[in-house]
Amino acid sequence: MNNERLNKQLEFLLEIDKEKSILRQSHKTDKNSENDAEHAWHSAIMIYLLREYANEEFDVLKAVVMSLIHDIVEIDAGDTYAYDNEGNSTKADRESKAAERIYGLLPKEQKDEMISLFNEFEEGKTPEAKFARVIDNLQPIMLNNYNDGNDWKRHNVTKSQIYKRNKITSEGSEVIWEYIKEIIDKNINLKNIKDE
Amino acid sequence: MNNERLNKQLEFLLEIDKEKSILRQSHKTDKNSENDAEHAWHSAIMIYLLREYANEEFDVLKAVVMSLIHDIVEIDAGDTYAYDNEGNSTKADRESKAAERIYGLLPKEQKDEMISLFNEFEEGKTPEAKFARVIDNLQPIMLNNYNDGNDWKRHNVTKSQIYKRNKITSEGSEVIWEYIKEIIDKNINLKNIKDE
Repeated sequence: MNNERLNKQLEFLLEIDKEKSILRQSHKTDKNSENDAEHAWHSAIMIYLLREYANEEFDVLKAVVMSLIHDIVEIDAGDTYAYDNEGNSTKADRESKAAERIYGLLPKEQKDEMISLFNEFEEGKTPEAKFARVIDNLQPIMLNNYNDGNDWKRHNVTKSQIYKRNKITSEGSEVIWEYIKEIIDKNINLKNIKDE
Repeated sequence: MNNERLNKQLEFLLEIDKEKSILRQSHKTDKNSENDAEHAWHSAIMIYLLREYANEEFDVLKAVVMSLIHDIVEIDAGDTYAYDNEGNSTKADRESKAAERIYGLLPKEQKDEMISLFNEFEEGKTPEAKFARVIDNLQPIMLNNYNDGNDWKRHNVTKSQIYKRNKITSEGSEVIWEYIKEIIDKNINLKNIKDE
């Protein structure tokens, strides 16, 4: 195709197909491991249908795109489990290199936009990033609650770890944070989450 | 949770997890079968990054959501292969019943919105539906072209079948239709697509 711009875009779009092979620690309702693309698809729909619960007005398309594209870096950097301290200490550096290579396949201004959205999500400061992160946390909690808390049990996850992970959730949505706290309490009572 | 509306929304959002188990006839770059959620995730990103090639201005969020949610009916109705004539003769009826049950888990106005988006996609008449359908066709063609045309070979797909399937593609994007025609011609030359 004699269209250099479209060729670059399609090269990127073919490359990101690999995200469908990056497995997460979460399990689906069919008990199989979930991959990053499935998680991103689920999260994007959740952002759209639960947007009324955001504390602040936000640009829904921007948050949806952020949610769809922010895990693409894991094609190179791998999935880092939420409660893996060692992995999380090197995550930023690994993901930043990955962002440069993968988003770098796109035409310059689209590369810059994708890297900016990725960084905005990681920083979690704008209304879009705050709500996208609320959903990024809620989605595996919803699945894990359905699956008898097996992922929490397997990793010996504690209440304080989940609270730390969700420290900005209430900034994004008070309503959803109240809901998550109920799920956590229920699973502490069921001994699925440790309350030390 | 004493919030009937949120409970309904979460019941729907848990139910649609099943879309991740609905396999398509397409294969990913890792040669495994693709599922509906992976296809929808990929398509949504393609709509966003290739939106400049749409013939008409369109509401990008609406097209992205249409793309993310339109295959949910396949949880009940199953995937119907693009070139399966028998399956396609009963597809509309099966999918309409599925839409009623699954989107019906949502609060009334969200159910109505989802069914309306689903129907709009199927009818393919608005700028959003036309472009979402361009991408819905381009995405498996891109993968299949990468995979040496194996899905076309396996199903003995002909040029006229692909042209029929893509009859509204040029209405959505002249540029992408030109690209798809190049891919088809290349694969006819390689004997991956039959030109009878």
